[in-house]
Amino acid sequence: MLTDFNTAVSMLKNADKILILTHRNPDGDTLGSGFALLRALRKMGKRAKLLNADRISEKYIHLYEGLTEDNFSEEFIVSVDVAERKLLGDTFMEKYADRVDLSFDHHGAGKPFAKMTYNEPDSASACEIIYSVIKALGVEIDKKIADCIYTGCSTDTGCFKYSNVTARTHRIAAELIEYGADCSRINEKMFDTKSMNSISLERMCYESLEVFGGGKVAVITVTKEMLVKSGTDKSHLDAIKPITRQIEGVEIGLTVKEEDGGAAGVSIRTSENYDASLICSHFGGGGHIRAGGCEIKDTTENAKAKVVDYILNNIL
Amino acid sequence: MLTDFNTAVSMLKNADKILILTHRNPDGDTLGSGFALLRALRKMGKRAKLLNADRISEKYIHLYEGLTEDNFSEEFIVSVDVAERKLLGDTFMEKYADRVDLSFDHHGAGKPFAKMTYNEPDSASACEIIYSVIKALGVEIDKKIADCIYTGCSTDTGCFKYSNVTARTHRIAAELIEYGADCSRINEKMFDTKSMNSISLERMCYESLEVFGGGKVAVITVTKEMLVKSGTDKSHLDAIKPITRQIEGVEIGLTVKEEDGGAAGVSIRTSENYDASLICSHFGGGGHIRAGGCEIKDTTENAKAKVVDYILNNIL
Repeated sequence: MLTDFNTAVSMLKNADKILILTHRNPDGDTLGSGFALLRALRKMGKRAKLLNADRISEKYIHLYEGLTEDNFSEEFIVSVDVAERKLLGDTFMEKYADRVDLSFDHHGAGKPFAKMTYNEPDSASACEIIYSVIKALGVEIDKKIADCIYTGCSTDTGCFKYSNVTARTHRIAAELIEYGADCSRINEKMFDTKSMNSISLERMCYESLEVFGGGKVAVITVTKEMLVKSGTDKSHLDAIKPITRQIEGVEIGLTVKEEDGGAAGVSIRTSENYDASLICSHFGGGGHIRAGGCEIKDTTENAKAKVVDYILNNIL
Repeated sequence: MLTDFNTAVSMLKNADKILILTHRNPDGDTLGSGFALLRALRKMGKRAKLLNADRISEKYIHLYEGLTEDNFSEEFIVSVDVAERKLLGDTFMEKYADRVDLSFDHHGAGKPFAKMTYNEPDSASACEIIYSVIKALGVEIDKKIADCIYTGCSTDTGCFKYSNVTARTHRIAAELIEYGADCSRINEKMFDTKSMNSISLERMCYESLEVFGGGKVAVITVTKEMLVKSGTDKSHLDAIKPITRQIEGVEIGLTVKEEDGGAAGVSIRTSENYDASLICSHFGGGGHIRAGGCEIKDTTENAKAKVVDYILNNIL
């Protein structure tokens, strides 16, 4: 069921022994939201813990630095930035999906699964919502919380670059700077640090580049072998996915990644003229207008052919 | 002579037939400042024109779109974002440097040359200053002016990524969005568009990559031949310059570019631990703390050796 902001805040106010869940393959927004909320709830004297299905990349260490573990049996479960149940990850979906009391989400195409969902599709990031929630909870924002919120605001907008940025996004960033957020250091870690390995992966990706539809569609193929050769893993793909669409003239960019079990993960980025989530939903996936993804149970070559054919025949 | 904000604004209020000068190799900030001011002065009923020493890249077309030319003999000269006289470019320096009535600048290491200089080194961009100036002039900010100001705010901060960003920078961006600035479209042109040629140049640059000082210093060398081979020109180098410093572990990144007449242009980017302008000033150049440049009258190989030696022996 959908709920309004004040009800969502009241639910948190009244809750204790709170488990916070983030989405699988956790990114800066789900983690920033989760750890900001965790820190705020603990400042209120509540017991809170955070779980997520996958390993947290080391670059997010500033989000959880200084936090202690707490083990208790949860009485209230809240999810942050989880657009649908399966994004909890297989194990967590089974264990928790039906027990989530409150979900904070900002995905317009989200599929609410919690008992109560507060969704603000105008928010550029879940962190924008959590910022308002923390203020409404009456918790004073400290530097650590500001760092968490800033990380989500910044990563989900490509550092204030994308069309999801609103005046509010910038005003929150201004306030976070005043609360002491270490913005440029966070941005450097999030956007401006490449390992020699990821540079090597990037070069291989450019070698795999193919162009279709008179230059409007560009495709990069990432095989498991490329990851091994470059010494990278799938966490490096976030930096690869935007590449295709950034090429002059390209309207739709695909990154096709060889997955385990003979499947292919397709990530789609579009110009303002095309809807990525629409293309992805045709293949059982989803996402936002300019960025989406889907999984196809086929080889990378076949998956690529299927998506490119669909785009050439139905979208362009 | 240095002057204060109100005096600078009064000078503009009282002036007419105004010539605006930008710096050579004009970037988004000098052009954004110049065209925003031009548009504002014309809205006040004044005659104003803008000149700069070099060709304006096509990606800045949104700054001057719709403007008509006006020819008059100037009675007042104002420069924007020009840190020192030689940055007017050789011809303009000779012609105008001693006649500039008012200079708006934000470079802490600037060398004032105008009759009056208003310098705000805390401003992330000259556009931040010009925004306040236009408001103080009582001109209503329209979408076109907002686009100009936003372009400078965004390009001089790496899209709100760098340490020069302040709460004010974000608040101005919020207001510019409300004035209708086309932020994401501007950012896409400024940051997220690469031609196949520039991708090809980037790949060559990675091939030229050398590392010194145990991985703390990285150098990319750009020869004229590389530009010819990739079909690019020096305007493509802005995208290359940050690459070195973005490599994990690199504290000081150099891009050494073969210039005409047997000279080498060295661009330096540093981590927060080192001062780029300090290194550059040793070679007669200058800049900001994290980004600077200098020209060395020598081959690229020798220039590289000189700067790397100096860094290894005196800086690291």
